[in-house]
Amino acid sequence: MSITCNFSKENISVQEAMDIVLNHIEEFGSETVQLSESLGRVLNENIFADRDFPPFNRVSMDGIAINFMAFEKGQKEFLIEGIQPAGSAQKKLAHRENCLEVMTGAVLPENTDTVIPYEQVDIKDRSAKLMTIDVKRNQNVHFQGTDKKKQDLLISSNTIISPAEINVLASVGKSSVKVSKNPKIAIVSTGDELVEVEQEPLAFQIRRSNVHALSAQLRNWGIVAESFHINDDKKLLTASIGKIIQQFDVCILSGAVSKGKYDFLPEVLEELGVEKKFHRVNQRPGKPFWFGKKDTKTFFAFPGNPVSTFMCCVKYFRPWLFGSLGIKLAEQTAILEENFTFTPNLVYFLQVTTQSKDGKIFAKPIAGQGSGDLANLAECNAFLELPMGRNDFRKGEVFPIYYYRSYL
Amino acid sequence: MSITCNFSKENISVQEAMDIVLNHIEEFGSETVQLSESLGRVLNENIFADRDFPPFNRVSMDGIAINFMAFEKGQKEFLIEGIQPAGSAQKKLAHRENCLEVMTGAVLPENTDTVIPYEQVDIKDRSAKLMTIDVKRNQNVHFQGTDKKKQDLLISSNTIISPAEINVLASVGKSSVKVSKNPKIAIVSTGDELVEVEQEPLAFQIRRSNVHALSAQLRNWGIVAESFHINDDKKLLTASIGKIIQQFDVCILSGAVSKGKYDFLPEVLEELGVEKKFHRVNQRPGKPFWFGKKDTKTFFAFPGNPVSTFMCCVKYFRPWLFGSLGIKLAEQTAILEENFTFTPNLVYFLQVTTQSKDGKIFAKPIAGQGSGDLANLAECNAFLELPMGRNDFRKGEVFPIYYYRSYL
Repeated sequence: MSITCNFSKENISVQEAMDIVLNHIEEFGSETVQLSESLGRVLNENIFADRDFPPFNRVSMDGIAINFMAFEKGQKEFLIEGIQPAGSAQKKLAHRENCLEVMTGAVLPENTDTVIPYEQVDIKDRSAKLMTIDVKRNQNVHFQGTDKKKQDLLISSNTIISPAEINVLASVGKSSVKVSKNPKIAIVSTGDELVEVEQEPLAFQIRRSNVHALSAQLRNWGIVAESFHINDDKKLLTASIGKIIQQFDVCILSGAVSKGKYDFLPEVLEELGVEKKFHRVNQRPGKPFWFGKKDTKTFFAFPGNPVSTFMCCVKYFRPWLFGSLGIKLAEQTAILEENFTFTPNLVYFLQVTTQSKDGKIFAKPIAGQGSGDLANLAECNAFLELPMGRNDFRKGEVFPIYYYRSYL
Repeated sequence: MSITCNFSKENISVQEAMDIVLNHIEEFGSETVQLSESLGRVLNENIFADRDFPPFNRVSMDGIAINFMAFEKGQKEFLIEGIQPAGSAQKKLAHRENCLEVMTGAVLPENTDTVIPYEQVDIKDRSAKLMTIDVKRNQNVHFQGTDKKKQDLLISSNTIISPAEINVLASVGKSSVKVSKNPKIAIVSTGDELVEVEQEPLAFQIRRSNVHALSAQLRNWGIVAESFHINDDKKLLTASIGKIIQQFDVCILSGAVSKGKYDFLPEVLEELGVEKKFHRVNQRPGKPFWFGKKDTKTFFAFPGNPVSTFMCCVKYFRPWLFGSLGIKLAEQTAILEENFTFTPNLVYFLQVTTQSKDGKIFAKPIAGQGSGDLANLAECNAFLELPMGRNDFRKGEVFPIYYYRSYL
């Protein structure tokens, strides 16, 4: 036994842990929600064009619509027959040497094919005189069906609904949309040292913070979870988690998974019929992470240190959740901005702040004091994944990165 | 007058427009909200440590706590006096050659200074025998105040509250927090061609989509806006907007700002006492963007094309909003992935999809059909800002980028 080795035969690698987690995604079906409630949800149907895009030959500049043939024949002045506003039925140019005033968004009038903007005509006494000789057939008309044809696929199923999708969904009349159903999630903290946020902790106590952070993470991903606290009492844990299993699809636990005398969770979960898929991952923070399944129910038991729980939620739970909803998250990478040394033989999730410069993402280590250093979380915006088997990481090297703030 | 020139003397540059918009940010004061409601809001107070971080000498591994002096003297076996669990008052090691079992999160017992993890001891009959010779004084103890001292600044005012801040806020007992008050925002669509999402449009009509997309954009930034539709009737517009001015801090309008016969908005706004700060920006999409102020009220009148409205909201309204709330958004850049040509002498906000590769962000043009091409929005995730005064943009060049989807 090597005396400084952090590696144990029972432990699995980060990659193995990730593979196991992703091999246990679940589907939770779909439901229909109002368009206004669909933001951030995962679309669960293909969206097709109900009409051509645009649905008619759409005027795209305010000005006059002419028949290009007249211009080709050398005509420079056009009698104005009338106006074609947006939102009105298509008019018809009676005489092809005349013109109609047309407004952006209007239907291009019959017998016209070209729009000349107001900036390039001089209008006097119901007559429009061209101030340009540069007119191209069909200019400033957005022709019917040039963007999409009726029945074309506009949005594929399994897309996160952003404001852009909301725009398209509204356009095709989807006042309600089919989305992936969210799992019911329970967040459970354990630990006798924890008191409520409102309470004044005694010298040896700290306030509950992990459940609040987990709830907030889930809310950012569109999930409203329920949270619980259970003290480090084996009987109580068994009874309470037994009930939670019946009501929820997913249970995210924090604490009581290490080697301590009161770390009852792995035992309790197995007694309740939850099958351990792994326990302990060669990583810091988050080494004693325990993951299990009971039928379709999924159990993420994270170590209780705030940064461990937080990191494990971002690294493991997030891709599991989105995988279950039908979304594969893209891998992102960043460039280490300073040399960094980490000696334990573990994957290290380094806390960093990132900066965009010259199209590159630079990640600056804000190392803090290890997995307990909670204050550090608020100074960073991502974890950079440094591989095991090495100690020195050089400025300029590229590593996977996991963001936990928005893109703003 | 150059016949193909899109530049007009009244128009201003994108940079000028941005400067003017940012010179007109407003403060909306602050309010106190529950911690659970604070996610995504802008913190409006400094957050200090109420205690040291950690608040006591915190055991960071499950194992035994010893007095290092005994180990130094060559002692290899320690009698176990008892257990120090997490959440219990500090115990005292009676005899310095003995040890106490200690749990992660517990207070380090008096007269001990070093923790040896269970993995490195063999416990039999109330006695712990070391399986390692590598023990360092103070190891596996997270000493009081090593992360932060009581009264240290943990989070500065003017920070967006992410789950990381929620964790810290909970830890220091902030069950309610002071945040920047959001402005009251009205979203107004105009255009006689628009019908509701539920309605079947006639041949020359389209459905309202901009207000839904704008509402969704604002919701992503933490704002619940009210939305209105007003037809292209000057009297009606004046009366309705007159009322809206009285009730809201900000009005985002879409449509009726171009040169059309029914583009009454600029006129109506000025009649209502709103001072025009600019009208028309040398950009595509979004050229006829009108911006004005009436006292502390702010008016963003965006062109009605879906992509114009969408882009202007991301590019101009977003930094204005966050500026008003106390946040300066960081500039982000990306690398153009393919050669691209754009001939009009305008700044072009190219729709792109981005990919992270080797720590770099590559932006691939998905050009679509110009400012009317709504379906294109759903295929992209950002706008790349190509400067005016050039036509050819080369693969590998770096430009500012504006994302409109989340970081996932």
